[in-house]
Amino acid sequence: MSTDTDADADDESTSKCGASSVSEAETESSSSGSKCGASSSETGDDSKCGASSSDSSSGSKCGASSSDGDSSNEQEVGATIDDFDADPGQLTAVGLGPGHAEGMTERAKTALLEAEHIVGYTTYIDLIPDEITEQADELYDTPMCGEVSRTEEAIDRTLAGNDVAIVGSGDPNVYALAGLALEILESKGATATMVDFDVVPGVPAAQSCGARLGAPLVNDTVSVSLSDHLVPMPEIESRLHAVAKESFTITIYNPWSRKRRENFQKCCEILLTHRDEGTPVGIVHGAGREDERVMITELGELEDLGESEIIDMTTTIVVGNEETYVWDDRMVTPRGYETKYDY
Amino acid sequence: MSTDTDADADDESTSKCGASSVSEAETESSSSGSKCGASSSETGDDSKCGASSSDSSSGSKCGASSSDGDSSNEQEVGATIDDFDADPGQLTAVGLGPGHAEGMTERAKTALLEAEHIVGYTTYIDLIPDEITEQADELYDTPMCGEVSRTEEAIDRTLAGNDVAIVGSGDPNVYALAGLALEILESKGATATMVDFDVVPGVPAAQSCGARLGAPLVNDTVSVSLSDHLVPMPEIESRLHAVAKESFTITIYNPWSRKRRENFQKCCEILLTHRDEGTPVGIVHGAGREDERVMITELGELEDLGESEIIDMTTTIVVGNEETYVWDDRMVTPRGYETKYDY
Repeated sequence: MSTDTDADADDESTSKCGASSVSEAETESSSSGSKCGASSSETGDDSKCGASSSDSSSGSKCGASSSDGDSSNEQEVGATIDDFDADPGQLTAVGLGPGHAEGMTERAKTALLEAEHIVGYTTYIDLIPDEITEQADELYDTPMCGEVSRTEEAIDRTLAGNDVAIVGSGDPNVYALAGLALEILESKGATATMVDFDVVPGVPAAQSCGARLGAPLVNDTVSVSLSDHLVPMPEIESRLHAVAKESFTITIYNPWSRKRRENFQKCCEILLTHRDEGTPVGIVHGAGREDERVMITELGELEDLGESEIIDMTTTIVVGNEETYVWDDRMVTPRGYETKYDY
Repeated sequence: MSTDTDADADDESTSKCGASSVSEAETESSSSGSKCGASSSETGDDSKCGASSSDSSSGSKCGASSSDGDSSNEQEVGATIDDFDADPGQLTAVGLGPGHAEGMTERAKTALLEAEHIVGYTTYIDLIPDEITEQADELYDTPMCGEVSRTEEAIDRTLAGNDVAIVGSGDPNVYALAGLALEILESKGATATMVDFDVVPGVPAAQSCGARLGAPLVNDTVSVSLSDHLVPMPEIESRLHAVAKESFTITIYNPWSRKRRENFQKCCEILLTHRDEGTPVGIVHGAGREDERVMITELGELEDLGESEIIDMTTTIVVGNEETYVWDDRMVTPRGYETKYDY
């Protein structure tokens, strides 16, 4: 996947409803179908967790535009530390990096091998090599939507005494679930120390895409998500104005979904008020996946590309600064050596 | 290493002169001593490269405050594509991630195993597991200073027909040498396609440090380097004002060296004009190294810590936004789920 965990969590809560990615939806339904053996084993697991399988509820939430349903199931979401008798296990948030096994760190593989339960969005679980998933006692995967209930499921399983890894693509700190895990732990009256909470970093989408484009990010840089699912659009616009005025390169996550056409259009408009039409822009769709596509274009062309297949929620966009140039099909943002060295 | 390649390249060109890290300098002299076998074998390599070993010249440059000496050695730096008869090899910029082998991706290991020559700053070469370096025909490492001549050496070896990996910690796109490699290739009349230039991404320092701190970076974020070696301080100050005004979390690279006390003081001053004294700040010194130290403090305390051992060029600092809080010794920046979900 080219996007980091929550970039897809946003994808879960938007493009699924907008059905912007039929093939992906198909992949999931088939893969989550194949995982039904694991899902059904959750019945036995519920007694351990003191929580009902969130499979059905997150399934039902998938149809809803918001996941507020999370709070409607007291048995599932209301479980607190007092509901668990066992000594808590360990909880590790693991970043898988880009969408191929070779992009994982050794530490991530070790953390997954040591976990008794591996929890994640179906697409991410499918990214993990079989030799690793086969070692786990249980896999708990849910399709799009439900990142909150899925994260809570991971925590309930941990508090029930299991060593649990919750996985996502990219890095757990980039629009990702590391924070949500800590927030939910606190809401349950648990502590991070109690579950020996740890984060295993991964290669973020910005780095995976930057590498595919050449060297577009070698100076000061910023990441902005265009998803207004959790951040109001006016704040996002204000941030874009602030950084576009300065010479930051800008990595845009969650650039487009059917429900967020306007956000993308507004973003292009803001960038063009501060940067030249000819500013190089790199577009990477599905980095590290079979459907990966890479394009280098100019800022003036970006908005029209919003309606093309290359830009959706699995796309990451890198906007150059005023010094960025394209050479031999690579984007290069000078670090400034040329001002000091003669070469 | 907690810092990405050029973060240390900056370190090379500054703190060495300021001698801010004696123990590191000692490590290098000893390790580069032990590499002398490889260095001396460069004599034989020069004929292949049509370039003299830059070992001595980069050594001499180390004493100089600027590496403009790069241009003084026509034979070394002036070599162009016309000076090489062989079919060019492959050039790969490889990110090693944090300072331990477990932090490397499988893809990085594979790239290093496939390289005939591995080129890098001595400290980075030492991060690579022996079972990998033993497979290389040649290691070319230079101590602090000379990142330009070292990068050019890597390119000359590639143009001479060798498959070369140039390595750095973190990610090649984060204040790193991927861009410099492309700039020097162009200056030699070569192309990136000619050497099949590729970038293997790694886990950046921001992610390694974010993971150690908890979940401080899960919303829109920015990276700023305080090194004015290559970027004028007024530009750095302007960028800091712009992002501190908005609710970006801020990762600060190259925060302090004896020659840059003022930059750090100015940075703290700017941050305090826009953010509360109580804003959580995470400090990670030498992430992934034996001397790793982690501290969570408040913005109001940051400037005074500049004079303590925890902040130097191997330190990465993460400044929270107005919503960031500290819980159970972890920094948490809410992604915004709490505004939509009840948990």
